[in-house]
Amino acid sequence: MSADKQSIQEIAEADYQEKLRLRNEIESYYEEKRKEIGLDSTKRIIDLLEDPGPFFSRNILFAHKDFNLILDAVDKGQEWAIVSGFNPSGPLHFGHKAMFDILLWLQRTLGAYIYIPITSDETYVVGKANSLRAARYNAYEFAIPSIIALGFDPKLTRIYVTSDYPDLYNAAIYISRFLTTNSVNKVFGLDASENPGALFYMGAVQMAQILLPQLPEFGGPKPTLIPVGIDQHPYITISRNVARRLNFVPPAELIWKFLIGLKGPTKKMSSSIPDSAIYLTDEPEDVKRKIKSAYSGGSPLASMQKERGAVVEIDPMFSLLTFNFLSDDEWAKIHESYAKGALMTGELKKLATEYILDFLSEHRKKREDAKKHIDEFILRTPIKSVLEMDQLSNLVADEKE
Amino acid sequence: MSADKQSIQEIAEADYQEKLRLRNEIESYYEEKRKEIGLDSTKRIIDLLEDPGPFFSRNILFAHKDFNLILDAVDKGQEWAIVSGFNPSGPLHFGHKAMFDILLWLQRTLGAYIYIPITSDETYVVGKANSLRAARYNAYEFAIPSIIALGFDPKLTRIYVTSDYPDLYNAAIYISRFLTTNSVNKVFGLDASENPGALFYMGAVQMAQILLPQLPEFGGPKPTLIPVGIDQHPYITISRNVARRLNFVPPAELIWKFLIGLKGPTKKMSSSIPDSAIYLTDEPEDVKRKIKSAYSGGSPLASMQKERGAVVEIDPMFSLLTFNFLSDDEWAKIHESYAKGALMTGELKKLATEYILDFLSEHRKKREDAKKHIDEFILRTPIKSVLEMDQLSNLVADEKE
Repeated sequence: MSADKQSIQEIAEADYQEKLRLRNEIESYYEEKRKEIGLDSTKRIIDLLEDPGPFFSRNILFAHKDFNLILDAVDKGQEWAIVSGFNPSGPLHFGHKAMFDILLWLQRTLGAYIYIPITSDETYVVGKANSLRAARYNAYEFAIPSIIALGFDPKLTRIYVTSDYPDLYNAAIYISRFLTTNSVNKVFGLDASENPGALFYMGAVQMAQILLPQLPEFGGPKPTLIPVGIDQHPYITISRNVARRLNFVPPAELIWKFLIGLKGPTKKMSSSIPDSAIYLTDEPEDVKRKIKSAYSGGSPLASMQKERGAVVEIDPMFSLLTFNFLSDDEWAKIHESYAKGALMTGELKKLATEYILDFLSEHRKKREDAKKHIDEFILRTPIKSVLEMDQLSNLVADEKE
Repeated sequence: MSADKQSIQEIAEADYQEKLRLRNEIESYYEEKRKEIGLDSTKRIIDLLEDPGPFFSRNILFAHKDFNLILDAVDKGQEWAIVSGFNPSGPLHFGHKAMFDILLWLQRTLGAYIYIPITSDETYVVGKANSLRAARYNAYEFAIPSIIALGFDPKLTRIYVTSDYPDLYNAAIYISRFLTTNSVNKVFGLDASENPGALFYMGAVQMAQILLPQLPEFGGPKPTLIPVGIDQHPYITISRNVARRLNFVPPAELIWKFLIGLKGPTKKMSSSIPDSAIYLTDEPEDVKRKIKSAYSGGSPLASMQKERGAVVEIDPMFSLLTFNFLSDDEWAKIHESYAKGALMTGELKKLATEYILDFLSEHRKKREDAKKHIDEFILRTPIKSVLEMDQLSNLVADEKE
């Protein structure tokens, strides 16, 4: 008995030490990566904002490049844009919702004009759907209604499904001459076994989406912000390169820390990791099942958790509550009691489940209603400017940043 | 004096021998190439045709694959299609006119429904124009009016400028998953320094053009003929591959011998070889100048030409007259007198100049008139079927022919 107890204690101790190690590893990963690629910390940005909101103050938006250009535009009352796409391989999950909540906050507090390409062509060429039909179905049935239901302003938001907006391809063709197969393969980690559609999508169609707000049809060059995960930084570097050659404003970037997946802190919430994600279309029993078996930052041994507290920073439920739902006061309170061992894992899971089920029940209704409003959000402006643009100049010769 | 005469004689002799060698080389090139890639000779086709017309009987159309499928369709009164594009890097020259004359003959005698993509995107991505604007200008100002002026039937001919028909890109995206970057690079001789637009154009947009007549919008699967030069055979092989996976009819091919360029028999008439081509927009003085300095199958020594005759088969002027203008009787007469030394180079050039100037003067008027009729020829059918097509099946896994 005593030997068994000893060994349970030992296992719990090892588990706790591993969790501390993981926390430190992840926290230093983001900071080292930020410095390595030369992005600025958002610490100074927070001081410039009247209301930094939850995403800056909880250090979710932790790094940026040229975000000051956006703040300048806001100060001067000039138009600025956000581009943030969605790959409709399935419905939105809470990781996507978190991203769209960030956009929503930027629209409400700083007046962002937001373009949301729903990239059905991407879904297909990267093999996440085996027909354009399936990708478009996801787009109109799940993605767009969910996005609208989150509360975007139809006067400041334009959504398009790439397959239904083929004018974009002329812009992509135009841009394609600024890049080489080689450089695209390198940045996006493609190889020669890839299909030509994936290469063209990554290297040209995606660039066209990012630069679209700066085309004459959409008001010409303007500060544009691309919120991305840190692994997507190289894409932005390419788009800044291309923008310079078109005499556009190089897009600014704002980097967010991923929502932790239900399977643990080393993986983000992602459609490609089974049961790592809670979808906005999940039924209550799915939610309960996934949360029940979710990883926890707390200890498997209640006594140890009470004594040392949970490792809050790597807990998926706490991550979910941090990105969604909680006011600053609630957030601080829960953070404290979970970290101190007053709040137990089961209680936190129960709390998160309640928040999620409440939200989903409401969202389901709103999503059905949103289907009636899709038309108000769809971008239909013909793209003719790239057909009239002047000759490429010697800029083409300059391939380096 | 005598030594000089000797040396002139020697030079002329060497020139004549070189011309015979070139003739043999070119004639065996076509025949060997045909056998090497496993195409059928058109000899049996000629017997099946009521009127073989000038292009079969003069052995310009010398090789084919599956042309019998076309004849079957004609016999059964079924619809069949030709796809033959034009890269609008400039105006049409007589090499292009020859190609379009072949199409016209196939339309008039066998009822071909002809699709003519004017590939402004290709012009741009392969760097033959530095803007889509320049390529589109060539398309609407020169190419389309010239093509219409040649006499195509508006009820059986559909022309589109790729930049102005972006629906095509959805078909290209759909098709792109049947190929790899690797296979496209190999077939089209591209490398990793190429831009992603060129790769996508070659491997997907071009395939979409070839397979377009078989989409449901255009009546579904049907025999389709692609007339090409022998160097383009690998493109057809790719398109046959893709067609099979879509349950389409693999396109038939009909191979023509190139019109010999003005600079000599080793190069076809081409926009990329200066002064090798006479354009349908050339002024009379340009035509005269180019023809005056053109290569000849005759001898530089009049006496030798009278004695041995010209090497007719490698003469650009005779090639031009073979592809254009001459009736069978005239053609046979000129062939004989030029080959026997009764007709001299200067006389042949004079005759060709007259034919060309007469044609150009007439064509200039017709081209201006044709500009009023462009609308009657433009393809505008929306392409929606690829957005509704079923899932790709296990066919995708099968990459080999």
